Amino acid sequence: MKAAKTVTTEDPRLSEVFDKLLGTLRNFIRENRITHEEYRRAVAFLAEVGQKGEVSLICDVFVEVTVDEVANNGRGGTITTIEGPFYVPNAPAMKSPCELPHRPDEKGPVLFLSGVVRSPNGDPLPGTILDLWQSDQQGRYSHFDIPEAVAPYNLRARVAVDHNGKFDVKTRLPGPYEIPKAGPTGALLAAMGRHAWRPAHLHMKIGRQGYRNLTTQVFMNNDPWLESDVVEGAVKSALIVDPVKHDDPDDLRQKNLTEPYYTLTYDFFLEPVIAKAA
Amino acid sequence: MKAAKTVTTEDPRLSEVFDKLLGTLRNFIRENRITHEEYRRAVAFLAEVGQKGEVSLICDVFVEVTVDEVANNGRGGTITTIEGPFYVPNAPAMKSPCELPHRPDEKGPVLFLSGVVRSPNGDPLPGTILDLWQSDQQGRYSHFDIPEAVAPYNLRARVAVDHNGKFDVKTRLPGPYEIPKAGPTGALLAAMGRHAWRPAHLHMKIGRQGYRNLTTQVFMNNDPWLESDVVEGAVKSALIVDPVKHDDPDDLRQKNLTEPYYTLTYDFFLEPVIAKAA
Repeated sequence: MKAAKTVTTEDPRLSEVFDKLLGTLRNFIRENRITHEEYRRAVAFLAEVGQKGEVSLICDVFVEVTVDEVANNGRGGTITTIEGPFYVPNAPAMKSPCELPHRPDEKGPVLFLSGVVRSPNGDPLPGTILDLWQSDQQGRYSHFDIPEAVAPYNLRARVAVDHNGKFDVKTRLPGPYEIPKAGPTGALLAAMGRHAWRPAHLHMKIGRQGYRNLTTQVFMNNDPWLESDVVEGAVKSALIVDPVKHDDPDDLRQKNLTEPYYTLTYDFFLEPVIAKAA
Repeated sequence: MKAAKTVTTEDPRLSEVFDKLLGTLRNFIRENRITHEEYRRAVAFLAEVGQKGEVSLICDVFVEVTVDEVANNGRGGTITTIEGPFYVPNAPAMKSPCELPHRPDEKGPVLFLSGVVRSPNGDPLPGTILDLWQSDQQGRYSHFDIPEAVAPYNLRARVAVDHNGKFDVKTRLPGPYEIPKAGPTGALLAAMGRHAWRPAHLHMKIGRQGYRNLTTQVFMNNDPWLESDVVEGAVKSALIVDPVKHDDPDDLRQKNLTEPYYTLTYDFFLEPVIAKAA
């Protein structure tokens, strides 16, 4: 039987990649002698993943690390890691110094995040936008775990650095969290005897004209899940940071705080866009 | 970083197959240098496949043939082919001779399907159940294209063969059809410049104690899509049948028919279950 190709191909890259993917999956089925019962279980599982809206979750947990590796292998500047499924575009635009949008009773210690965005040789890069997003202290993301109507863009903002390339952002310390466990992704992890925890982290996409976009995360040191992130390969040692605790009563009074706070300083390095040789 | 394995594994086969699948997909991403944009397109596509309820459709169209090949490679008896996404369990139980459930105004020529279910050496096998399902003349399946409330189990039945292993089933000639084109599976085929047609066919699952279940289809000869079934590899030459047209006026009058009808005779051969060597 001939293949079902009749008219001209609209998207050659799509056809090429899809045909290779089919060949790969068919070989996988043969090599692992997937039974019809296993196949039907897999199809039912995928259908549930789709119905419960977990496609991005399961893909980002299990394979986005490799997509990031392919895109950024050999790249200079700050090391990248995955975007994950909880990014929301068009967060409020703010100018440094600023405080991320938050609920009046936002829980958890205050975190002052600061640093400079720099070129590879260390020059500060004014004109940069840091698109920041993070979970709250309970590990919940706005627009996902916290409804948008309750707290729109909670702990999310697009922050413009100052004329010295510096950012100063008041926020809250993020908490570690379990990825959603009630749906099929959680059931799969449980059936494989794996936990669902991610270590506490902050997300950022950093963009500036003339430089490659940088998508990465910084991970809080001493988190119990740093060594066993459910997203295998997302944590990289250069991205582990050590927030400093401050509890001097005079200092707290001066900052109008009643609880200890944390500071974290981290500089990001962007890689220039290189014109491609012909 | 260590893998996120902590407690005992509940399902070793699942863990093994899933880890191998991840390794295979990661290598695929590396070898084909899948970009982040392509990855996000693929994730959005899969999410739409899930939302539109096309997971079984797309899997059965593109990979079930290989699952069937693995399950039945080297098997004796009638050759198998895919089940596809339109099977519905628990169709009405009937005894041969019988007529499949149909609407009062069911369109298309009448088809008398008959044959004997046999063991490999040709002995008839009374006690066999033929679970039959098919599209109507317009290529539409009940419970999918035709709502269950409109015509429950239309052109579906579980037919018990008679004491001679014979089945005589009055039905309608099935039509060729396009698999659903309005959703993402159709969009993918279109983007690759491929058509969505399946040649006209009848589906059957045949079961009897002591014999392996047989899932197969028979395809109507002279169908324009026999050579380019969108389900690549589903058509097998041994499953192509040639319905005979009857238009003798006396014969039609005797059968109380006003239009020409067709007959089709096909014997099915089941393979005995062999006790596995230890």
